[in-house]
Amino acid sequence: MSKLKKVLIANRGEIAVRIIRACAELGIRSVAIYTEADRYGLHVKRADESYCLGDDPLAGYLDPARIVNLAKETGCDAIHPGYGFLSENAEFARICEQKGVRFIGPKSDVIQGMGDKTQARASMRKAGVPVTPGSEGNLATVEEAIELANEIGYPVMVKATSGGGGRGIRRCDSEQELKQQFPRVISEATKAFGSADVFIEKCIVDPKHIEVQILADSHGNVIHLYERDCSIQRRNQKLIEIAPSPQLTDEQREHIGELAVKAAKAVGYENAGTVEFLFTGDDVYFMEMNTRVQVEHTISEQITGVDIVSEQLKIAAGEKLAYSQEDIQYRGFALQFRINAEDPQNDFLPSFGRISHYYAPGGPGVRVDTAIYTGYEIPPYYDSMCLKLIVWALNWQDVIKRGQRALDDMRLQGVKTTAEYYQQILQHPDFAQGEFNTSFVPNHPDLLKYSNKRHPSEIALAIAGAIAAHAGW
Amino acid sequence: MSKLKKVLIANRGEIAVRIIRACAELGIRSVAIYTEADRYGLHVKRADESYCLGDDPLAGYLDPARIVNLAKETGCDAIHPGYGFLSENAEFARICEQKGVRFIGPKSDVIQGMGDKTQARASMRKAGVPVTPGSEGNLATVEEAIELANEIGYPVMVKATSGGGGRGIRRCDSEQELKQQFPRVISEATKAFGSADVFIEKCIVDPKHIEVQILADSHGNVIHLYERDCSIQRRNQKLIEIAPSPQLTDEQREHIGELAVKAAKAVGYENAGTVEFLFTGDDVYFMEMNTRVQVEHTISEQITGVDIVSEQLKIAAGEKLAYSQEDIQYRGFALQFRINAEDPQNDFLPSFGRISHYYAPGGPGVRVDTAIYTGYEIPPYYDSMCLKLIVWALNWQDVIKRGQRALDDMRLQGVKTTAEYYQQILQHPDFAQGEFNTSFVPNHPDLLKYSNKRHPSEIALAIAGAIAAHAGW
Repeated sequence: MSKLKKVLIANRGEIAVRIIRACAELGIRSVAIYTEADRYGLHVKRADESYCLGDDPLAGYLDPARIVNLAKETGCDAIHPGYGFLSENAEFARICEQKGVRFIGPKSDVIQGMGDKTQARASMRKAGVPVTPGSEGNLATVEEAIELANEIGYPVMVKATSGGGGRGIRRCDSEQELKQQFPRVISEATKAFGSADVFIEKCIVDPKHIEVQILADSHGNVIHLYERDCSIQRRNQKLIEIAPSPQLTDEQREHIGELAVKAAKAVGYENAGTVEFLFTGDDVYFMEMNTRVQVEHTISEQITGVDIVSEQLKIAAGEKLAYSQEDIQYRGFALQFRINAEDPQNDFLPSFGRISHYYAPGGPGVRVDTAIYTGYEIPPYYDSMCLKLIVWALNWQDVIKRGQRALDDMRLQGVKTTAEYYQQILQHPDFAQGEFNTSFVPNHPDLLKYSNKRHPSEIALAIAGAIAAHAGW
Repeated sequence: MSKLKKVLIANRGEIAVRIIRACAELGIRSVAIYTEADRYGLHVKRADESYCLGDDPLAGYLDPARIVNLAKETGCDAIHPGYGFLSENAEFARICEQKGVRFIGPKSDVIQGMGDKTQARASMRKAGVPVTPGSEGNLATVEEAIELANEIGYPVMVKATSGGGGRGIRRCDSEQELKQQFPRVISEATKAFGSADVFIEKCIVDPKHIEVQILADSHGNVIHLYERDCSIQRRNQKLIEIAPSPQLTDEQREHIGELAVKAAKAVGYENAGTVEFLFTGDDVYFMEMNTRVQVEHTISEQITGVDIVSEQLKIAAGEKLAYSQEDIQYRGFALQFRINAEDPQNDFLPSFGRISHYYAPGGPGVRVDTAIYTGYEIPPYYDSMCLKLIVWALNWQDVIKRGQRALDDMRLQGVKTTAEYYQQILQHPDFAQGEFNTSFVPNHPDLLKYSNKRHPSEIALAIAGAIAAHAGW
């Protein structure tokens, strides 16, 4: 395989911009796609070429055949799927393989195998990676589920085999709940993922969400970039991600890293991926593998210095990893804040609209990945995340203070955001002590009772924003 | 000594914002000063308190007694002088000492001793730090200068004893030139520094400018944060700074670092400082010590992870350094681009005016330190530097590509800047090979013959900018 020359980015928003930047640094031409709703998207302005895929806000981003054809027509030798959209769609990867366009990710059958949660659990069991007690395959009836639940003990989770991203998953604390939820998950899974397959597993109560970033080349080399602690989440949606976890011992860290490498090797994984685990403090269980770059890849970059998206492009070009496991050293701590256009005090209702004023935070240890700008109107059709604020410092206490400072530094007006809520989390003594698990957010509803700080000079800038909206790039 | 509670920042622009950020992270209240010309400066908007020191654009920033009085009146326990202005004014430090306000820097007599170039050379000679051959004291007459020049050989440099920052310094290649330049430097020095004292030293031809960042606490602990290569300069003004130097061997690096620590210890140095050396590839000579934080401190922060301004505040509070030399590890390479509002193609003429559109570059390995914003009008009274763009990557070739990408990413319209010129430097094969010295810029006038790239959608945004100028912070 030879160096990539031109890459189509089958995505939008900040991740498309992120990939364009990596392409630029590697001397690769970038091709953006967009739909009318995204005409003023930063990825459209920043790519070397951009193509509109129609009026429907979503259809263009979700049409495998059309995207692969466009890649062929525009002379692209590869497609980067980003996260979300078609990134874990095995069919998309398969069409790429068939048409001779490199899919920047693992082989289609690996995506399929990991996307099927029961198959993934079976692969992991076989490879010696611990999984939570539960079904060995899909469950046909609620009676089967009840029988198994009695065996492993409540609470249990009912999960859609094709689910992911926090959807198609319900907790049941009793047989009665299981009877209710089992058909609901089937119904939800059928609608959301086109598959009625479900399974159950033991519910690990108050675990930490620990995930390991791995990189695997096409020559059989697999390394990990240490772990991320994504326990600060709400309804299975990550809010603040941390690398490395402030609660793991070095021994636990090495152990989980090795498990992730073992998992990747067991399925012949290639490219960047993330192995997600539940961690109880004593035991660690495989949860799922995300066969794509993740929103929170940035914090692993901050602590190891490795550019994960660049590595994805190099791996897809057939290059060998330039690093062995011993070369990967982590330093300090990084936090990522997902700044979502949402109103935390109104049940996190999306707050789409025009950004009347945006000014990036800066200075030492601050990184921003975003596609917003002053005057940009956040379209209501997509994810509400509008900015990733990443901070780094040499130690845990300093990174918290840096996060507070950077959140305060940022100006983002015109929509409500989660920024002020994150300030509350940072100030909580348990967070400061590094003591939190996935129950932190649900257990602290009081943190939502803040009063919005207003900078005295924060006068509406809507007019300036409106004028600035579509020019100047 | 106890923790600082409130700090007055006797500066403006990006360094004032930098210090405000460090204060915020340490829970220290910040007090800004400004003059009318800086009323809309970001440091005024971001500090906890701000005080106007009159209509004259400069006088307020240069009035030691008034600033110290204000610090007392507003309950500040310390003053951070930043760089430039009063930062190396021993009298200012002395007034602070007398009035019981901590000066965040070394003791006044150390500032004075290092500010007097002939005294500094004498101290270094005594401490065993090599200095360039030249006068042992000031020279009273041109005849003395000629005699010494004949002894050490031409070319020689005539230098103002109180000079610095590239001013009060002339090269002479012959006796005839020395006769001409000697009185000129005296005249310049008298005007600029209020002292007619001059000396000469052997001119080291085509040296590298290598400087070492040091940190010294009040308990006698001194460490270095490795070196910066500031050879890319024009008329003694640094343009692009690099850490560490791509041309030093580990042995040379350790040696120069140790010399810097020796220099600092010899004079009882306290707080952050920089020891500047000329490096020929074989020999290293002490040039001068800057007894303050430097513009380019950022790149040492990027490679070591140490927050230098935070350390300054902690040292001033009497804290012991939390790091020993062994704790300081450098990783990767960092570049800093001084984005100046100047027209490189018109002899670097300052290009003051209104920023019609500014958008910060971002993504992996990018840091921005600036006080500009869309609509901000760069006042004509100060330094033309309007933004520091800092990039970091694990290796030398990658950091160059990242620099190119980040410069390209940045949008800064309304004034001419040095950004495009820096792109030319980055593309030069000698730079890419890490082979350059202080003659690189003068030896490559061809790099100024670029045509300005224009982004197709870069339409003037002056109206939006003007509206946005003074609101929204």
